[in-house]
Amino acid sequence: MSGSTDATDADDAGVVYLVGSGPGDPDLLTVKARRLLEDADVVLHDKLPGPEILGLIPEAKREDVGKRAGGDRTSQEYTNDRLVELAREGKIVVRLKGGDPFVFGRGGEEAEHLAAHDVTFEVVPGVTSAVAGPAVAGIPVTHRDHASSVTFVTGHEDPTKEESAVDWHALAATGGTLVVLMGVGKLPEYTAELRAAGMAADTPVALVERATWPDQRVATGTLADIVEVRDREDISPPAITVVGDVAATRETLAAFMRNGVDGEGGAE
Amino acid sequence: MSGSTDATDADDAGVVYLVGSGPGDPDLLTVKARRLLEDADVVLHDKLPGPEILGLIPEAKREDVGKRAGGDRTSQEYTNDRLVELAREGKIVVRLKGGDPFVFGRGGEEAEHLAAHDVTFEVVPGVTSAVAGPAVAGIPVTHRDHASSVTFVTGHEDPTKEESAVDWHALAATGGTLVVLMGVGKLPEYTAELRAAGMAADTPVALVERATWPDQRVATGTLADIVEVRDREDISPPAITVVGDVAATRETLAAFMRNGVDGEGGAE
Ligand SMILES: C[S@@+](CC[C@H](N)C(=O)[O-])C[C@H]1O[C@@H](n2cnc3c(N)ncnc32)[C@H](O)[C@@H]1O
Ligand SMILES: C[S@@+](CC[C@H](N)C(=O)[O-])C[C@H]1O[C@@H](n2cnc3c(N)ncnc32)[C@H](O)[C@@H]1O
Repeated sequence: MSGSTDATDADDAGVVYLVGSGPGDPDLLTVKARRLLEDADVVLHDKLPGPEILGLIPEAKREDVGKRAGGDRTSQEYTNDRLVELAREGKIVVRLKGGDPFVFGRGGEEAEHLAAHDVTFEVVPGVTSAVAGPAVAGIPVTHRDHASSVTFVTGHEDPTKEESAVDWHALAATGGTLVVLMGVGKLPEYTAELRAAGMAADTPVALVERATWPDQRVATGTLADIVEVRDREDISPPAITVVGDVAATRETLAAFMRNGVDGEGGAE
Repeated sequence: MSGSTDATDADDAGVVYLVGSGPGDPDLLTVKARRLLEDADVVLHDKLPGPEILGLIPEAKREDVGKRAGGDRTSQEYTNDRLVELAREGKIVVRLKGGDPFVFGRGGEEAEHLAAHDVTFEVVPGVTSAVAGPAVAGIPVTHRDHASSVTFVTGHEDPTKEESAVDWHALAATGGTLVVLMGVGKLPEYTAELRAAGMAADTPVALVERATWPDQRVATGTLADIVEVRDREDISPPAITVVGDVAATRETLAAFMRNGVDGEGGAE
């Protein structure tokens, strides 16, 4: 993994880099991601890397694959096919994904598609918003005194559906921190599930919107009132929901932190 | 969070940066971490960032706080106090931690200590080994078809102790991927717990040792035989244990991946 961004196995064959952009601050790109954005022939991306990072990529190289019509599935198939096509043209292709490519990023599916089509690829891990979002709000996702585990989970599924793949009762029972991605819309549903599973109404909850973007915001509350907070502050995606005792560390840390969020919290 | 690494609030006051190094490949340092290693007056570190990253730091700036005698707790207190002391001398201090500072890194405790002593600090998130370790072995920690959640958990605690803070039964019940850190030594205990909790004996398990270090190794097996694999391959810390269906994606991905691990897997 020692950083060659040029040589490929076959001479004329292209290569696809599945690259994490981090949460949005260009300073949180990895050294390798930064270099690959320079070296790439083409960068396929959606909006999640955020305005500052997308602004670094020359227009001529950029292909936005995030706003295609026809729904999720079509878009993913288009992206998969496009990656293979460009690699077969011999291109150095960067598939840039917000955060880390293998954390709810469909990176696994894209990698499988590339392998199935004999395309050489490399995964370049990034700083996931699931860790960095809480962090820049003054929240450590694990803590010796408060949390021996942390779970990242998608909030996208309707927890009231019988066939839901997410078991909120089991998650509540872990006793660890829960970090919900894609969890703004269904906040009422899964907070209700967690309370029904026995989590205390006063369990601290934080919402971190556009973490490390220029317009980052943080709002805090409890399992009982966070939906109200969300509505009052008009928190919208992309945002991270942190549920657990660690969310309260923000209170003691924020005043001494220089991560640019002090005093900007919507709900404080 | 827009990257100033110089100015502090008070003129003569020092500042502490709690910085994640990523898993070990210098290319996976963030742009900001790389710059801070240059700008720092002092870098406090242990061995976890790995030989390549530690090799980038000029000897004169390096303070190894990882190998102090007297056990864990003494070491942590010494580090806490040293950070405050250096900041009060007006220094730009980097506390460099393997992976991300807030993922089982005691970063939360250090931040609290700094806040309690009126020291300004900043958290610089890094690429956690809990995501990158599996990734470079060809394992996406979440996957649309296999895992709607991923849990990072410490394997350090003895699961047979009554007061264990980790509930392996609840973790098994989540149905998601489990990523165990500090989990080489107690592998027999927690794999037994997971089986007792109903996880199938043939659940895929992977061990990723020294992920992204020059001597990275990967070994794979199942819940039933991974202890044997560990012993045969002599897997030792630092290593990540991945438990779940996603661990099997390595089989289809590894041959097409250029992350430097192909064919190096101890057990394959
Ligand atoms: C499809 S998932 C991709 C996650 C991404 N791969 C990662 O590791 O951060 C999209 C979700 O990530 C979260 N997210 C990504 N970037 C974020 C940011 N800068 N601030 C807050 N949440 C973010 C939000 O929950 C969003 O709905
Ligand atoms: C005290 S924890 C710190 C984790 C770190 N903060 C992170 O985010 O990666 C130490 C554990 O991290 C894991 N670890 C850290 N770096 C690793 C690497 N390069 N390869 C495999 N495991 C690693 C191992 O499980 C190790 O026992």
